[in-house]
Amino acid sequence: MDRNIQVSRLDRQAVEDQEVEIVERKGIGHPDSICDGVAESVSRALSQLYLDRVGKVLHYNTDETQLVAGRAAPAFGGGEVVEPIYILIVGRATKEYDGEQLPVDSTALAAARDYLSEAIPELEYGTDVVVDVKLGEGSGDLQDVFGEETQEVPMANDTSFGVGHAPLTETETIVHEAERALNTTYHDDHPELGPDVKIMGKREGDRIDITVAAAMVDAYVDGLGEYDDAVESVRGYVDDLAREYTDREVNVDVNTADDYDEGSVYLTVTGTSAEQGDDGSVGRGNRANGLITPNRPMSMEATSGKNPVNHIGKIYNLLSTRVAESVTSEVDGIRDLQVRLLSQIGRPIDEPHVADAQIVTEEGVELGDIEADVLDIVDRELADVTDVTRSVIEGDVSTF
Amino acid sequence: MDRNIQVSRLDRQAVEDQEVEIVERKGIGHPDSICDGVAESVSRALSQLYLDRVGKVLHYNTDETQLVAGRAAPAFGGGEVVEPIYILIVGRATKEYDGEQLPVDSTALAAARDYLSEAIPELEYGTDVVVDVKLGEGSGDLQDVFGEETQEVPMANDTSFGVGHAPLTETETIVHEAERALNTTYHDDHPELGPDVKIMGKREGDRIDITVAAAMVDAYVDGLGEYDDAVESVRGYVDDLAREYTDREVNVDVNTADDYDEGSVYLTVTGTSAEQGDDGSVGRGNRANGLITPNRPMSMEATSGKNPVNHIGKIYNLLSTRVAESVTSEVDGIRDLQVRLLSQIGRPIDEPHVADAQIVTEEGVELGDIEADVLDIVDRELADVTDVTRSVIEGDVSTF
Amino acid sequence: MDRNIQVSRLDRQAVEDQEVEIVERKGIGHPDSICDGVAESVSRALSQLYLDRVGKVLHYNTDETQLVAGRAAPAFGGGEVVEPIYILIVGRATKEYDGEQLPVDSTALAAARDYLSEAIPELEYGTDVVVDVKLGEGSGDLQDVFGEETQEVPMANDTSFGVGHAPLTETETIVHEAERALNTTYHDDHPELGPDVKIMGKREGDRIDITVAAAMVDAYVDGLGEYDDAVESVRGYVDDLAREYTDREVNVDVNTADDYDEGSVYLTVTGTSAEQGDDGSVGRGNRANGLITPNRPMSMEATSGKNPVNHIGKIYNLLSTRVAESVTSEVDGIRDLQVRLLSQIGRPIDEPHVADAQIVTEEGVELGDIEADVLDIVDRELADVTDVTRSVIEGDVSTF
Amino acid sequence: MDRNIQVSRLDRQAVEDQEVEIVERKGIGHPDSICDGVAESVSRALSQLYLDRVGKVLHYNTDETQLVAGRAAPAFGGGEVVEPIYILIVGRATKEYDGEQLPVDSTALAAARDYLSEAIPELEYGTDVVVDVKLGEGSGDLQDVFGEETQEVPMANDTSFGVGHAPLTETETIVHEAERALNTTYHDDHPELGPDVKIMGKREGDRIDITVAAAMVDAYVDGLGEYDDAVESVRGYVDDLAREYTDREVNVDVNTADDYDEGSVYLTVTGTSAEQGDDGSVGRGNRANGLITPNRPMSMEATSGKNPVNHIGKIYNLLSTRVAESVTSEVDGIRDLQVRLLSQIGRPIDEPHVADAQIVTEEGVELGDIEADVLDIVDRELADVTDVTRSVIEGDVSTF
Repeated sequence: MDRNIQVSRLDRQAVEDQEVEIVERKGIGHPDSICDGVAESVSRALSQLYLDRVGKVLHYNTDETQLVAGRAAPAFGGGEVVEPIYILIVGRATKEYDGEQLPVDSTALAAARDYLSEAIPELEYGTDVVVDVKLGEGSGDLQDVFGEETQEVPMANDTSFGVGHAPLTETETIVHEAERALNTTYHDDHPELGPDVKIMGKREGDRIDITVAAAMVDAYVDGLGEYDDAVESVRGYVDDLAREYTDREVNVDVNTADDYDEGSVYLTVTGTSAEQGDDGSVGRGNRANGLITPNRPMSMEATSGKNPVNHIGKIYNLLSTRVAESVTSEVDGIRDLQVRLLSQIGRPIDEPHVADAQIVTEEGVELGDIEADVLDIVDRELADVTDVTRSVIEGDVSTF
Repeated sequence: MDRNIQVSRLDRQAVEDQEVEIVERKGIGHPDSICDGVAESVSRALSQLYLDRVGKVLHYNTDETQLVAGRAAPAFGGGEVVEPIYILIVGRATKEYDGEQLPVDSTALAAARDYLSEAIPELEYGTDVVVDVKLGEGSGDLQDVFGEETQEVPMANDTSFGVGHAPLTETETIVHEAERALNTTYHDDHPELGPDVKIMGKREGDRIDITVAAAMVDAYVDGLGEYDDAVESVRGYVDDLAREYTDREVNVDVNTADDYDEGSVYLTVTGTSAEQGDDGSVGRGNRANGLITPNRPMSMEATSGKNPVNHIGKIYNLLSTRVAESVTSEVDGIRDLQVRLLSQIGRPIDEPHVADAQIVTEEGVELGDIEADVLDIVDRELADVTDVTRSVIEGDVSTF
Repeated sequence: MDRNIQVSRLDRQAVEDQEVEIVERKGIGHPDSICDGVAESVSRALSQLYLDRVGKVLHYNTDETQLVAGRAAPAFGGGEVVEPIYILIVGRATKEYDGEQLPVDSTALAAARDYLSEAIPELEYGTDVVVDVKLGEGSGDLQDVFGEETQEVPMANDTSFGVGHAPLTETETIVHEAERALNTTYHDDHPELGPDVKIMGKREGDRIDITVAAAMVDAYVDGLGEYDDAVESVRGYVDDLAREYTDREVNVDVNTADDYDEGSVYLTVTGTSAEQGDDGSVGRGNRANGLITPNRPMSMEATSGKNPVNHIGKIYNLLSTRVAESVTSEVDGIRDLQVRLLSQIGRPIDEPHVADAQIVTEEGVELGDIEADVLDIVDRELADVTDVTRSVIEGDVSTF
Repeated sequence: MDRNIQVSRLDRQAVEDQEVEIVERKGIGHPDSICDGVAESVSRALSQLYLDRVGKVLHYNTDETQLVAGRAAPAFGGGEVVEPIYILIVGRATKEYDGEQLPVDSTALAAARDYLSEAIPELEYGTDVVVDVKLGEGSGDLQDVFGEETQEVPMANDTSFGVGHAPLTETETIVHEAERALNTTYHDDHPELGPDVKIMGKREGDRIDITVAAAMVDAYVDGLGEYDDAVESVRGYVDDLAREYTDREVNVDVNTADDYDEGSVYLTVTGTSAEQGDDGSVGRGNRANGLITPNRPMSMEATSGKNPVNHIGKIYNLLSTRVAESVTSEVDGIRDLQVRLLSQIGRPIDEPHVADAQIVTEEGVELGDIEADVLDIVDRELADVTDVTRSVIEGDVSTF
């Protein structure tokens, strides 16, 4: 067995120390995230369907959901969707096994419905949003079964690349946590905040600017005064949250494109801009770690919707992130860590062609001090690669 | 005012007295009837929307719903839909009025959903059936408003033809009543009977053969024995019902295409053959009086989904039936009555080009004895033409 | 062998002698006819595909084509299609046989393209009209092959009904021939006339009113003057043609809804009203004999797109018309003939349950004089039933 | 005017000098590239339409094309497409201006057809591939016109980020040039090579591995021997080409997943894997410079299909690449250059919030030696920002 693990010095500054840093996160109600979420829900549901019916996951990929925006007429106190959002679930799936027909289309639709009702509760399924499905059969040779027992490590069938980082910078942390908090804790008390929250963080030196675009839900906002209060409440909340993660100067702006004089504000019926003109698709938004980080290497591979048993790009993107997080949580002295995994066609996926951990150490720490520990952890996590598949199927890990 | 009413002798035998008679009714769960029902529900909902929002019915037509069958895997005790039914609502509607956007698409989808959940309750909206909508804007000149007050009689904008008959023959009555009873009273006690009930009646001389094709719902049928009981129960029920309406010889067959040895029976998951290979569309099934009667003149015009304010074909088909029924209920001595209305472009629709009532009198009755009464009733009903529109909008009259 | 042939007196006047007669024909460019034509072309192409590839016609039905109208901006001298017409080919087909995949979808699309380019030449495929296809697999038991050799007479699998008439009345003849002539001979010299020609004939006593709605093609019409000439030219042509078939009083009107003052005329870019707001579907227009004849019994069954090997409704509609035409061309003294065929489930289709020929004889002719001849011809045509299938597959017979 | 231009040292090794480098290019026939190409063609066509009709580019975005793969049955000597590829053009466009309807749907379809027939000539439009279009109207306030004269510099309406690099490394150059040469010069003499050529380059130290996946077109390949020759020919050609750009060790593999014993080779009917199971969408493949370069910062923004007049992400991605190329072509001594542009909402787009040029100089060159020259060039190119828009509309620049 050869895992080809390399530990080396990362030949740049830690992102935390670079002069300019840009980070973005599209919240779960953003049209691209809706597609990611639907695609991944459908994927999980199909994995479960196959496990329930035939005891193993069969070939499928559902990573191409497309959203066509609708039209809405929002109004303070409650407007209406005029033309529904259209979502097309696209992909491949095995529809028959051992003579038994498998309800992949119905399962996909049910998964999409359940996901949407949880993620975008104001969106009425079937009238505000129409979901259709086009799942092809895939090619004959891809239809062979695999993953008889997911404990077996599958072979890499493609040259693919995954990259992960840890720890998050302050700006990355703020952007990520702000969206998560707004869409959970904050939303529980503030139903006027819709799930389409987009957060951009920009740091120049020691000043962090957080820009939030937050879709307000009209039924809970009675007029411009209440709207303004809602915006200010989000601003204050994010400002407070940011200060928990940094001592740098922080500035938060919310809905900067609003023009109160023109009556042009970010008001929606359903809490997502998909209701009015913003299309979306899978893999165009957040990377597997939930962020868009142009300062760091990123993989272009869409993670959401891919088959978690054998899609090497999905597995390596999630695994490299997991490796990076494990290393930095267990080993002290790492200021920035980048883990890259490159697959080798025809070899088990726990034996990558390249597995390198590139490190910026903290001041006073030498790479040699921690190299062996890092190597051990990378080795251990690679050995446990099938646990990534398990976590994905059970919904324990987010892909966007 | 000139209603051009003619009363004359019908130059053939009453259908009741002809040697061979054929009648058919497609029940509400038949794919063609599903389309009729969806189209008419959407039409009613749009009329209501326009009345609520702008005080008058605007231009629309929704008479082109298309159903693409799904795939299902029925099984005794409960199977599943594998591939959803796809329904496309097609038509034209006015989407904007006085600067206000009108939610015609969402309204259409909501109407379809509500109708389907009532008519085909076993069909889960959004997973067993996907409904999409393509409503165009229509041509500029058709977008002018009309029907400011539905009490005003609109002008005929087309040469169109409607025909109605009364009274129903015994065979017609049996076919019609059997489907209605099976899908209401009988179904209340027998959930195993699905709404896709197709009934064909054939009379040769004094023998009436009733053939019923009845979709059984698998969740309520545990095996072939129960299935056979369910079939026999339907047969007995229809046989009893038929005898209430005739003294002729009656023979009833149910699900004649079943082959128990091959295990080939009419078992469904949802109670409609649309789940498995039977497509449907508007205007291909029952005529406006609920029957298909090749022995009688019929209009090819689809009635369901048409705009009830100004679509002359729809109005005349419903009105001619209403006229025929009024005449035969109020005037004795009529064995068969056929009412034809032909519109005259550019004239108010209560002044048809031709309104003729052709009559086969009962033995001993002369046409002259009843002519004046008939003429009065036809005149009265024509004068009340806008009441047809009102009944349609309020859902008081069936169109298929 | 029992053909159950009955010859009897038709208990009504010949349609030619009735006081009021209505006839309609939707030309090949009418939205409903476009659907009929596409559906039948697809059907023929699939029959040919199956014959070429596996030596027999497999199960299919393509009788549910739906057309959603587009939008156009016609203008004298040449306008443009703004939003394409959308055509969805719906049905069932066998997609795999003996392990070989059969290109049914591609074949259907190619057939539709070829048909449209011939029938509506001004319509550019792929930009003015988008054609998509949804052909399901059908149910398992319907997928069994049949028609091993089309010389074998298949069994009736349904109770179905066909009806045919001959000879055509003067009004019927004029309506039918006028559309055919306008769309062939006349069109060759007059490219400004589009294929969407709808003709309604109404006869009251001895006066025949012919109303033509004729879509003009804008590229060939430079202004209102030329348009008016084009309309007058059609009027004159139809007037002349009508007089060849009748000595009755004839009145012809063309495009009566035009309003020159308002600039509202029947001008189109492509020659069909489907470009602007008129939807269409199969089986809603002309019956199998090319006409809509409310004065006569009609079958509701769509003929176009049905499988010609085993769809009993299609076969009996075409066969009954063929029988009626053969009888009246070979036997003198018949003023009106109506042929009805009713199938018997489980019996070969050349042994119908009922095959009756009902006759109105000409003055001086007794039914007894011709009964034997009629019976022989009906018998001969029934024996030759498989020739209907052959003619349909080879495109020798029109279905709408 | 403040362009905020900064020139600084890039705090990492040049990519050329890093130990491991990965580069990928999806050829024009790859499903994702097909979507990029269609989206960008549609965008160009709409820009032209607006310029022709109203003298300025109106609001639109067409960056969401979705491709659903078909099914094919390739065979040596010529197979066939069994189920067509389905492409849905999604986006927003202004459909009416000053009372005139603009044919955006038809224009989009025509652009897609023309692009496909050039890029994937074996793909028959309308039968092998069905293209449909869903272009919404967009929101009211986005429908205001803009770009009255494209010489005026528009305001940034979003915070967006673009990044460009130059010069390309040897590996990047080889990957890019190999695809371009295969799909032009080579293809001219070798029709058996389809446009779906995917090239991955991996460099470890001084060894470059080039892996080519090349779809062969079955009509031009008569058997496995010819296929093998075709593969070897591509290998040799790429090998020769690579050596023109590097002195490092080069290894080229073509179609490594082939298994001759199993008869499993990369044979297609149309030259693209979209014919059989590979879906695609916009923005999932090549970045604006034609490459996927995980070693370098990348923008997630899709460039293809975006409005080139006001979409700041598109403009900045193209402009930053153009700046980087200009600088390195005019200034000596640069080993690696990275240009980042960050927009500032509400400011003209030629006055970015950040415009930094980060440089790795060649040995012996100091940043100070070239700083002024670099600054001048960046300033000049920013001043000429509207030329990017012009180039895009005229099709002079590739976006993928």
